[in-house]
Amino acid sequence: MQYSNFVRTFNAHSGAKELMEDMVCNPPGIDTVYRLGGGNPAIIPEVAELFRAELAKIAADSKRFDQMASIYSEPLGDHHFREALADLLREEYGWPLTAANVALTPGSQLGFYFLFQLFGGVGPGGKRRRIIIPLCPEYIGYKGLLADKSDVASRRSVIHKLPDRLFKYGLRMDGLEDIEDMGAIVVSRPTNPTGNVIRESELARLDEVAKARNVPLIVDNAYGLPFPGMIYVNASPQWNENTILTMSLSKIGLPALRTGIVVANEEVTEILGRVNALTQLAVGAAGAALVAPLLENRELLRIAREMIRPFYQRKVTEAVGFCHETLTACDYHIHKPEGSMFLWLWFPGLNDNRVLYRRLKARGVMILSGSEFFPGLRKAWAHSRECIRINVCGNADMVFEGLRIIGEEASRLQAKAA
Amino acid sequence: MQYSNFVRTFNAHSGAKELMEDMVCNPPGIDTVYRLGGGNPAIIPEVAELFRAELAKIAADSKRFDQMASIYSEPLGDHHFREALADLLREEYGWPLTAANVALTPGSQLGFYFLFQLFGGVGPGGKRRRIIIPLCPEYIGYKGLLADKSDVASRRSVIHKLPDRLFKYGLRMDGLEDIEDMGAIVVSRPTNPTGNVIRESELARLDEVAKARNVPLIVDNAYGLPFPGMIYVNASPQWNENTILTMSLSKIGLPALRTGIVVANEEVTEILGRVNALTQLAVGAAGAALVAPLLENRELLRIAREMIRPFYQRKVTEAVGFCHETLTACDYHIHKPEGSMFLWLWFPGLNDNRVLYRRLKARGVMILSGSEFFPGLRKAWAHSRECIRINVCGNADMVFEGLRIIGEEASRLQAKAA
Repeated sequence: MQYSNFVRTFNAHSGAKELMEDMVCNPPGIDTVYRLGGGNPAIIPEVAELFRAELAKIAADSKRFDQMASIYSEPLGDHHFREALADLLREEYGWPLTAANVALTPGSQLGFYFLFQLFGGVGPGGKRRRIIIPLCPEYIGYKGLLADKSDVASRRSVIHKLPDRLFKYGLRMDGLEDIEDMGAIVVSRPTNPTGNVIRESELARLDEVAKARNVPLIVDNAYGLPFPGMIYVNASPQWNENTILTMSLSKIGLPALRTGIVVANEEVTEILGRVNALTQLAVGAAGAALVAPLLENRELLRIAREMIRPFYQRKVTEAVGFCHETLTACDYHIHKPEGSMFLWLWFPGLNDNRVLYRRLKARGVMILSGSEFFPGLRKAWAHSRECIRINVCGNADMVFEGLRIIGEEASRLQAKAA
Repeated sequence: MQYSNFVRTFNAHSGAKELMEDMVCNPPGIDTVYRLGGGNPAIIPEVAELFRAELAKIAADSKRFDQMASIYSEPLGDHHFREALADLLREEYGWPLTAANVALTPGSQLGFYFLFQLFGGVGPGGKRRRIIIPLCPEYIGYKGLLADKSDVASRRSVIHKLPDRLFKYGLRMDGLEDIEDMGAIVVSRPTNPTGNVIRESELARLDEVAKARNVPLIVDNAYGLPFPGMIYVNASPQWNENTILTMSLSKIGLPALRTGIVVANEEVTEILGRVNALTQLAVGAAGAALVAPLLENRELLRIAREMIRPFYQRKVTEAVGFCHETLTACDYHIHKPEGSMFLWLWFPGLNDNRVLYRRLKARGVMILSGSEFFPGLRKAWAHSRECIRINVCGNADMVFEGLRIIGEEASRLQAKAA
């Protein structure tokens, strides 16, 4: 068959597909697979129990079942859920929100797909504008969303070395405000893949630049507050009329219900409603129907605070300890784990992380090569070949043994390169 | 804020948004709303009971719950569901399918959005190709999916008048095979909005033309066989390697679970897997998890045959009777109701259906103006201003009374125009 040029984007960028396939793949001839790759959150039994109990209530209540399964939601998504979320955010953070500021999408990723189309690419008068990623490494999923890859541009972070083999990426401001063809600024906070929680002062600078350029600051809050709440430092979320804050039900443990959330001014949500209606008629209601009561009675805040955050904080702390035990033969640094469920490991001089990825896969250790997390970075940066992302959700023995094998392979590659 | 040109599509085409909003709206000052508008299927209590029982099983089984809610599906969608569907279709119709021929999307509409992008618009060498709709009236949802509206083109159907005020649209072949810039042919069967089930001979001609042009024939089977099975004449579905057959769980009663299905050759599903991965990571699993067991044990075939089809056939037959009772003051014709849950009413000389829509809305009767169902028709056709679509799922009294008011308003407009 013959295809339009639209197909090129999807042939060129297979990273996302490999990532999703790696999550379920079993490399041939391998008995034990160490799943430190994809982004599936953990199944925390006591949290899953609560969700199952809620689902049982829906199954027992024909009216709730109909709302979940049988009646199309509004184009912006389930009204009850959106209202409960707006109330909760207003109460927690004082943001002046109503349900009209909340749009749902079938997963955050599709929300980002459409936000990138709306703010990047060719605009009035034929003027092209770029989505600016001010701190890379940054999320793999921002890659390839626009047909013309020059419409997404990343800027290198500054590396701040810290004691105990830790480091932290910082915002490099020079030249940022001079970018005239800026269409939007995008940052994930906590950052996937690094676990960075950019400082409030950095967020404030980005907010200023975005406002000065009359473009939105898009903040991906998939791992942030108030849920799932995977933040292990002092930090609070920010919102104003120029911020597009995205959230998700994935990391509270419901990734397969694909419920993405956009909190934005009404002009933006109105457009997203049109996008949803035209491209999807309506957004699926399963996640919203399940979680709305837990927003309404604020139970989800307790679940995030008492169950989800402690679980992941323990996992992350434990994994840092494992690194210090298993990576002794390597030169390594760990990004300060301030949030999320990942560790970002830096092996200076590693040549390179794609080779490491393949060698590890051959030994059954699934990781993500850091090279995937520099979407739209034009100038070569050796650092982008030296890092990997690991998911630390799995059981401790698996993470330990996976890290041990990573240490073996990384030290070999470092020795060879030296 | 400033937007890219992408936003224009969504500002220009508000039909889909109005449609979805009309479904829940309550016109001000109106006590009784007659909902003959949108496309929400009926809630058939005994069918909903079966689905609720299945949901209760999931809520009681942590493994099934995790598959539904907590573990990302493959990019093509839940494997278990896709395998069960391929088996069922192979067994029922002899089509040589495996799970690899089945791709899920969060609702058929998003599947169509991406299929239109893949086969219409600018292709290699800058050559534009158009999505051809060979028989209009045709589904409103095909409108506005491509940024450049000249990339979708409709062709008028032939009107065959039948006894008893019925008529049936037929395929006009002349010139069809001469369209050189054809990117795909799209037809819904049963047709939304008309209830037409195009003849097998017509489908065969479209298949020939599509193959000769090396473009796919996309057949939208949302109302067809084997489920929901809303076909009231003798007809069977067709598939071959050049057919892209779309199906849905919406019309079995699960529209809010947004589960669209694409059955196609592996080249096409492979591309859709890439599209899903890049734009959505994964497809929601709620609908698939709920229905997979009912595909596996073939129970869904029985539900469609014994519960869904009889329900809608009765509704449609009853509504035709109501028309003959209530529209006596009008000159009217009814499209022969061969399938779906709609009646398509033609009021010759009506001037015009958008006025009728507004007058009816003011009296609380929600319908769809037929003018929306001629996506991409360039040359004016008076017929497109003379028809309306009504959804006959509602209770008999509501449908009767709605039709009575339609009869009053339509006869007034016809008299005025005459």
